[in-house]
Amino acid sequence: MAEKTLNDLFLDTLKDIYYAEKQILKTLPKMAKAAGSAELKAGFEQHAEETEGQVERLEQIFEMIGKPARGKTCEAILGIVEEGKEIMTEYKGTDALDAGLASSAQAVEHYEIARYGTLKSWAQQLGLNDAVKLLDQTLQEEIATDKKLTQLAEAQANKKAA
Amino acid sequence: MAEKTLNDLFLDTLKDIYYAEKQILKTLPKMAKAAGSAELKAGFEQHAEETEGQVERLEQIFEMIGKPARGKTCEAILGIVEEGKEIMTEYKGTDALDAGLASSAQAVEHYEIARYGTLKSWAQQLGLNDAVKLLDQTLQEEIATDKKLTQLAEAQANKKAA
Repeated sequence: MAEKTLNDLFLDTLKDIYYAEKQILKTLPKMAKAAGSAELKAGFEQHAEETEGQVERLEQIFEMIGKPARGKTCEAILGIVEEGKEIMTEYKGTDALDAGLASSAQAVEHYEIARYGTLKSWAQQLGLNDAVKLLDQTLQEEIATDKKLTQLAEAQANKKAA
Repeated sequence: MAEKTLNDLFLDTLKDIYYAEKQILKTLPKMAKAAGSAELKAGFEQHAEETEGQVERLEQIFEMIGKPARGKTCEAILGIVEEGKEIMTEYKGTDALDAGLASSAQAVEHYEIARYGTLKSWAQQLGLNDAVKLLDQTLQEEIATDKKLTQLAEAQANKKAA
């Protein structure tokens, strides 16, 4: 077997985040349904749409490197989503629910920020310039979503919960 | 049973990150041992020391709110650490190992950045001003560690891996 290289790391991580995005796509509608405030609900719905575009970008990158678009179980996102589900159950019907939901969503965003940051940096190193552009677009979206969640939480959800 | 509030969310998340920090404390020496470059090795060792201080800060906060310092299983960190272990095994002895290790460490940092950011914001809302200061100290350390990992990866590990 040939020694594993940065190309393998790039592909493994691409599969990891592809799996993660699909899990997130399944989870966001549940979070939107659970959310109490109209703004948070709309935020999750909008991010679900954005996530569909992010999945398409990943599929374009798989195509660029001549590999089938396939996910690989991502234990990290499963753990993060599991914790979000616990909050949905334990805080159901309380004034603290939205603060908990926003916090769960930010844990998801930060996982994505870490992975897309790494993928972008590896794509640069590998000279995959078109992939760099796509990865950066998604990275900027995730950073913006995280900021928006902080604003929503601080302006509303945390105050309501206190 | 009384309805759960922001105080409960704060305590639950404090327990979550306390458990996570203890897992990270166990994992960092393994990552330091595995790392190929002296700089990355030193970075992990230094971050292990820093993490000990972060655990102490969490214990101070438990004391401030009059609760015993106890962790609560954090599925997210278990998943993130598990993925890091996979990389250590699959890329052992390759030139790509350090790039993979740095990337795993950044996933850990981003989980912490998300949680400490939330805890700080909730502590502000709850008027726990001394806790805000401690949480912000740790948050700034995690952000600095993440930046340092990006620099190390881009200056060395990714180049070596390519």
